[in-house]
Amino acid sequence: MAIIAIDLGGTRIKTGVVKNGEVEHLFIKEIAPNKPLSTYIPFIKERVAYLKKELNGEIKGLGIAFPGLVDTDKNSIIDTSGKYEDAPEFDLATWVKQELGLAVKIENDARLACLGEWQYGAGNKSPDMVMFMLGTGIGTSAIIDNKLLRGKHYQAGVLGGHFIMDYHNTKDVCSCGKYGCLESIASTWRVDQLAKAHHLYSKSNLTKLNKINIASIFSIENETDELAKHLREHCMYVWALGIVNLIHAYDPSVVVVGGGVMHSESVIMPFLKDIIKNRAWCPSGLPEIVTSAYPDTAALIGIEVLFKN
Amino acid sequence: MAIIAIDLGGTRIKTGVVKNGEVEHLFIKEIAPNKPLSTYIPFIKERVAYLKKELNGEIKGLGIAFPGLVDTDKNSIIDTSGKYEDAPEFDLATWVKQELGLAVKIENDARLACLGEWQYGAGNKSPDMVMFMLGTGIGTSAIIDNKLLRGKHYQAGVLGGHFIMDYHNTKDVCSCGKYGCLESIASTWRVDQLAKAHHLYSKSNLTKLNKINIASIFSIENETDELAKHLREHCMYVWALGIVNLIHAYDPSVVVVGGGVMHSESVIMPFLKDIIKNRAWCPSGLPEIVTSAYPDTAALIGIEVLFKN
Repeated sequence: MAIIAIDLGGTRIKTGVVKNGEVEHLFIKEIAPNKPLSTYIPFIKERVAYLKKELNGEIKGLGIAFPGLVDTDKNSIIDTSGKYEDAPEFDLATWVKQELGLAVKIENDARLACLGEWQYGAGNKSPDMVMFMLGTGIGTSAIIDNKLLRGKHYQAGVLGGHFIMDYHNTKDVCSCGKYGCLESIASTWRVDQLAKAHHLYSKSNLTKLNKINIASIFSIENETDELAKHLREHCMYVWALGIVNLIHAYDPSVVVVGGGVMHSESVIMPFLKDIIKNRAWCPSGLPEIVTSAYPDTAALIGIEVLFKN
Repeated sequence: MAIIAIDLGGTRIKTGVVKNGEVEHLFIKEIAPNKPLSTYIPFIKERVAYLKKELNGEIKGLGIAFPGLVDTDKNSIIDTSGKYEDAPEFDLATWVKQELGLAVKIENDARLACLGEWQYGAGNKSPDMVMFMLGTGIGTSAIIDNKLLRGKHYQAGVLGGHFIMDYHNTKDVCSCGKYGCLESIASTWRVDQLAKAHHLYSKSNLTKLNKINIASIFSIENETDELAKHLREHCMYVWALGIVNLIHAYDPSVVVVGGGVMHSESVIMPFLKDIIKNRAWCPSGLPEIVTSAYPDTAALIGIEVLFKN
């Protein structure tokens, strides 16, 4: 039996059918950021109808990856951190059941990426695993003793981007409204601000861009650019220390690093591994640090795993 | 059946008998810091012999709380972070079995304090709990789904004092040999350095002390001292943010704050709760923040819990 999977990302919605860890009928819709969920309800309805027809009724259910906090007991969205802001008020689970006639499960996108990598990808079914996802923000998740860590209020594991790593900073507000978080020091949305405030900016190729993000500083055109290099090293250094904190918290067998920027893994992975090796305090052993096997589809694949558990 | 319990602390060794969460025959030995474990082997032998005699053979076993990393599968000490430095080379478990003729279990002291508070104290048997212990350093531990979190290499939960919270600091070395850790910003061993380097030092009562520690800045004599007040607020602020990071990592129902300094809980707890409330990003709920029920004996009590599991 197949699962229909939808990943509601910050800039893209991915849909597909997952069976035995393989994604079929993958369709990616580029979207404008910060639009409400209601904008995309017709698209979801139309896409699911198409997939139901293609699958001819052989469907176990529909899973949705959401970029925010999800109450997995009530199958409801708790908090959105600025994306699809109407989602907590829109009863998505009931809508799916009534309008699409499918069993439904909703879960945080980083948790689903973690499940996907764990069962079918770089996590290699390790009993203890951490996922570190570089997207618009920084998404994290953890498997402890072969089980997804959720915590008392569904917040455990997914707040790795909001560990405080600059304790005396009370100026630079993070996406969560707080200060000093990892994500507020080195994420795609922070990089634009850092670049434009830097003294090397006027001499940099980055001036040609309207909006600077992680992809821009890692692009081939910016390989020899002094500011881009500085920002790359700043981000990789901070990500490495962020991973050290997750290692100190969960002591996993393996850390899987994912997200679109991992297309530059040949630059990123040696840098991260070097810093982690030097800065993690792990006298009895370090985890393996590996690249995501499915940087673009791990969350979709994870939806199938969610339905199995 | 009773358990003989020994807590090998940084400045004190506590011994006693534990039965149903009650400590009897408590004996506390003040010790010089940084001595090897072998120094105290005769004391342990003599004390256990006395307790065995008192108990007249009704003993389930001997448990040892150790201030470092412990391999609980092999019952061996992995790392000491400067205390009882010969411990990894001394086969304590075999020595206990052969010389004292008792079943033995060794575990990290913060984990045992966590178990003690969880079953008999402020943790109130919550399925998800975090322990935050203010001692010579900062000890932490976590219960997840009614189980002590240990991780792949026995490091999970206990490294909360070594979360990096000052990412750009590569000058001030922590007790672990790394930089920017919580413990290197606000712990009893750091306070002495911070005080002596401060511009208010020459006008402070703290000049009267040879060694300044957390207890000195919280003492009644220093209540109106400007530098002591500054250091108190610095420490409490950083501890609060350290607890925020643990909340973000584990999302517990309850955080238990312990350690000798909690005799000043009337000053510390309102301060911590206020900062945590403002700085934790927990849209779906905050844990309770409570004071340890057994600031001095939680680890001894936890040894009984360890033998039950």
